[in-house]
Amino acid sequence: MNKIITIGREFGSGGRELGKRLADELGFAYYDWEIVSEIAKRTSLSEEYVKSIIEHKPIISYPIHTGRSFTSLYYDVHADHNTSVYQEQKKLLKELAEKSDCVIVGRCADYILKDYNPYRIFVYADMESKMERCRQKGETDKNLSDKKLKRYIKKIDKHRSKYYAFYTGLNWGDKLNYDLCINTTGINISNIIPHIAKML
Amino acid sequence: MNKIITIGREFGSGGRELGKRLADELGFAYYDWEIVSEIAKRTSLSEEYVKSIIEHKPIISYPIHTGRSFTSLYYDVHADHNTSVYQEQKKLLKELAEKSDCVIVGRCADYILKDYNPYRIFVYADMESKMERCRQKGETDKNLSDKKLKRYIKKIDKHRSKYYAFYTGLNWGDKLNYDLCINTTGINISNIIPHIAKML
Repeated sequence: MNKIITIGREFGSGGRELGKRLADELGFAYYDWEIVSEIAKRTSLSEEYVKSIIEHKPIISYPIHTGRSFTSLYYDVHADHNTSVYQEQKKLLKELAEKSDCVIVGRCADYILKDYNPYRIFVYADMESKMERCRQKGETDKNLSDKKLKRYIKKIDKHRSKYYAFYTGLNWGDKLNYDLCINTTGINISNIIPHIAKML
Repeated sequence: MNKIITIGREFGSGGRELGKRLADELGFAYYDWEIVSEIAKRTSLSEEYVKSIIEHKPIISYPIHTGRSFTSLYYDVHADHNTSVYQEQKKLLKELAEKSDCVIVGRCADYILKDYNPYRIFVYADMESKMERCRQKGETDKNLSDKKLKRYIKKIDKHRSKYYAFYTGLNWGDKLNYDLCINTTGINISNIIPHIAKML
């Protein structure tokens, strides 16, 4: 069986950087946004739309409607897309896990690939450190005030948490669902990579 | 400033073993029950009594009493002991931190020594693994049924959690209060020690 490492991460914590560097150190394949592009291809939905589905709280489609409207029709279609994106994601992750050793960031991979016995890492940091990283990496609009940036980070993580809970029934970020939780506050990620790699 | 590593740990997770092995690997001093013995000496209380105070939820002494009884008097004395043990613990931990590089297990050390910028590790595991470790290490009565052992482990951790919350105002085991959280489920602790040591 291939070696699989999954990375859950708070927005701005450096989880993607950690995943990428770890994959490079170990010579493993690395998957992050590549998954979104592939799902978009397979479902004929746009990358942006797939991304918005993955990063947002899923919408539930209720099977019984009395008095349908355009709005309810929109929600039905959107809910169908939610489901088909998740199903495609499941299928794709299993294909990737079968293909080679790999590091996968996000996408409920720790849960979807549990039969592959992945090493599950969760990366987090305190708010100040996440804000600083966002500004340094230019991941958010540089003109955002501290207050708005903080609100933005919280919003992204809230969506991730709801998406994860919806499909797994588990609490996103609850340490019991991971093998190692790394607080990146005040640390240089590249310095710890060789040692994490050896731990695995 | 000396290097300080603090270990918070769930009962049965192997946190003490991890702390001891890490101290040996790094050549650091190691403090666990030695702290209890020293506090007992300094407060003239018995080791067993100090241990019971540290492992249990603190009792609050209310300053105003109308109609005193032997019971309330007992609680007053016990609450005074709680406070003096914690004060002595604080003093002692700071002395140890000043003395040399060290690993300290439990005792709210991560909080008490926060000005010394400790590297804070939390060790945890799933219930099955903790039960297995307890049986292997003979840390609990070997005749306990699975149900009773589980209840015992939960009770110890509940006390640790309440003690920690009472004196620190923080949630025991909340990953944000630690730099690294290690799940010891299914792993051989001695194998990971050299790599953790290098990470620090």
